[in-house]
Amino acid sequence: MNKIITIGREFGSGGRELGRLLAEKLQFAYYDKEIISEIANRTELSEQYIQSVVEHRPINLFPIHTGQSFYAYAMPNPLFEQNQEIYAQQNKIIHEMAERSDCVIVGRCADYILRDYNPFRIFVYADMSSKIKRCREKGEDPENLTDKALKKKIYDVDKERAKYYNTYTDHVWGDKKSYDLCINTTYMELEEVAEALTKMIFVK
Amino acid sequence: MNKIITIGREFGSGGRELGRLLAEKLQFAYYDKEIISEIANRTELSEQYIQSVVEHRPINLFPIHTGQSFYAYAMPNPLFEQNQEIYAQQNKIIHEMAERSDCVIVGRCADYILRDYNPFRIFVYADMSSKIKRCREKGEDPENLTDKALKKKIYDVDKERAKYYNTYTDHVWGDKKSYDLCINTTYMELEEVAEALTKMIFVK
Repeated sequence: MNKIITIGREFGSGGRELGRLLAEKLQFAYYDKEIISEIANRTELSEQYIQSVVEHRPINLFPIHTGQSFYAYAMPNPLFEQNQEIYAQQNKIIHEMAERSDCVIVGRCADYILRDYNPFRIFVYADMSSKIKRCREKGEDPENLTDKALKKKIYDVDKERAKYYNTYTDHVWGDKKSYDLCINTTYMELEEVAEALTKMIFVK
Repeated sequence: MNKIITIGREFGSGGRELGRLLAEKLQFAYYDKEIISEIANRTELSEQYIQSVVEHRPINLFPIHTGQSFYAYAMPNPLFEQNQEIYAQQNKIIHEMAERSDCVIVGRCADYILRDYNPFRIFVYADMSSKIKRCREKGEDPENLTDKALKKKIYDVDKERAKYYNTYTDHVWGDKKSYDLCINTTYMELEEVAEALTKMIFVK
């Protein structure tokens, strides 16, 4: 069975970069936004739309207040079906990736989707001040937000990630019990962490 | 400044053993129950008594219901003073250990007490089934408890550790934010984890 590393991460913690470095060092395939592109290829939906679906908790698909509840449940709902198709494709693509070769997969509940592959499940996090600094350095703040506004953005992105993960898995996003290793990048250089991790991930 | 590694751990997760292995591999000093023995030497109190004090949240030192609250607060309380002496000695001894050489320190809020030394703060945890299995294998269940009773014991020990840590620090015991690395030992061999960690701890 191929060796699979999954990476969950707080926004601005450097999780994506750590995953890329780790994949380079181990010569593993690396999948992140490639999953979105592949879903777009297969469904003919735009990458932007797919991104908006897979990074948010499923919307309430039926009207809450309706005098015609039978109608609401019985009629086909195109949006619901489209979203289900996106999730199904994502699931399929992630399984194909795991079958193809050793790989690092960032986000997308891959730790849960691939639980039968015994993945090494990493979660990357950091102090808020460190995340704000990293966002500014890495250009992930194109709007040049105030510290307060950037903090809110970081909080909101993670809130959506948590909702998505907690809806589609029976684990809790960011709870250490859901992972094999949780790494606080606040005081660490990612390059060095990745190098050290090349030993760690073969322990499981 | 000496390199300090601190280890917080859930009961039965193998944290103490991991610390000992890591210290051996790095040729660092290792401190665990040695701290209790040293306090006993300096205070002439029994090790058993000191253990009971430092592993529990401070007791309520003043009567809750009293018609003489002035008396209760104003009078010396020998138990309170004795406990304070134990905490003060523990703090002093841990600082002396950190000054003496590179070392691994298990428990005792050492991560917080030595925060100015920039320690590498590890937290070790595991699934309950794994902790039960380890307790039985390591003879930490001399009473041969049922699974249910052993689970309760594990839960109770950790509850006391959490209360103690949360009282004496401004961090939260077991919350990943309080540590640099959290390791789930459920599916891992401690010997191999310790070997891989010898690289990781120099990253910070």
